[in-house]
Amino acid sequence: MTGGQARERFVRSRIARLATVDTSGRPHLVPVVFALTGDTVAFAVDHKPKRSARLKRLANIRAHPEVCLLVDGYDEDWDRLWWARADGTAAVLPPAAASAEATRYVLLLTEKYRRQYAARPPQGPVVAITVTHWSGWHAT
Amino acid sequence: MTGGQARERFVRSRIARLATVDTSGRPHLVPVVFALTGDTVAFAVDHKPKRSARLKRLANIRAHPEVCLLVDGYDEDWDRLWWARADGTAAVLPPAAASAEATRYVLLLTEKYRRQYAARPPQGPVVAITVTHWSGWHAT
Repeated sequence: MTGGQARERFVRSRIARLATVDTSGRPHLVPVVFALTGDTVAFAVDHKPKRSARLKRLANIRAHPEVCLLVDGYDEDWDRLWWARADGTAAVLPPAAASAEATRYVLLLTEKYRRQYAARPPQGPVVAITVTHWSGWHAT
Repeated sequence: MTGGQARERFVRSRIARLATVDTSGRPHLVPVVFALTGDTVAFAVDHKPKRSARLKRLANIRAHPEVCLLVDGYDEDWDRLWWARADGTAAVLPPAAASAEATRYVLLLTEKYRRQYAARPPQGPVVAITVTHWSGWHAT
């Protein structure tokens, strides 16, 4: 799979998994809904209930901006398996109210997840990931 | 979600995402098919084509055994979202031909993925992850 094809898989995916690294060097995983524009993947802290108000994903990014994202397709016919990966550098932006860049990403998120965000756009910090490498694999 | 409930989500999942950390401290993600017994998650290098014969996931584990696994469920009704996470320590075992422990995990994998593995059990290195922390979240 080419880098362009891997990026295209992200365009068509509704959910990705975000890997960050904490200050002790341990990997951490969480699913994220996201928007993609150019080579930037953006997500935002929204109203979905969280396990904790002090989000480990944000603390990790602030301490260690290198992240990895994955989308994949599972099928019992393993000839149909695929995955796509994005390696990049993340930055936590101020909430959209305080940043034009964050406002743009919130608009993209609200367009992509219209049903979920139209009446209630995300109001928390926005994370912008500059993807430096797209890669992927498919079985056949 | 309790730790026991998070573990149960892994029992019922066919695919997980594995996060490792490379020698430069970058996170790395790949999907894995896996078996679970007690608090051990096992997967094996199998016949599915790989992007490279020298697998980064194994090199990372040898250098940095702390790993994280995630299973999740996406639904456009975000009240139905959930994820479960396993933090643990991984070890690369010799192929099943050389290790009773690896043989046992290959049998479990072959039972779980009967259609895919029955005629062609995995023959490569087996990875055993000792899970030290189960956690999870569901929206409602």
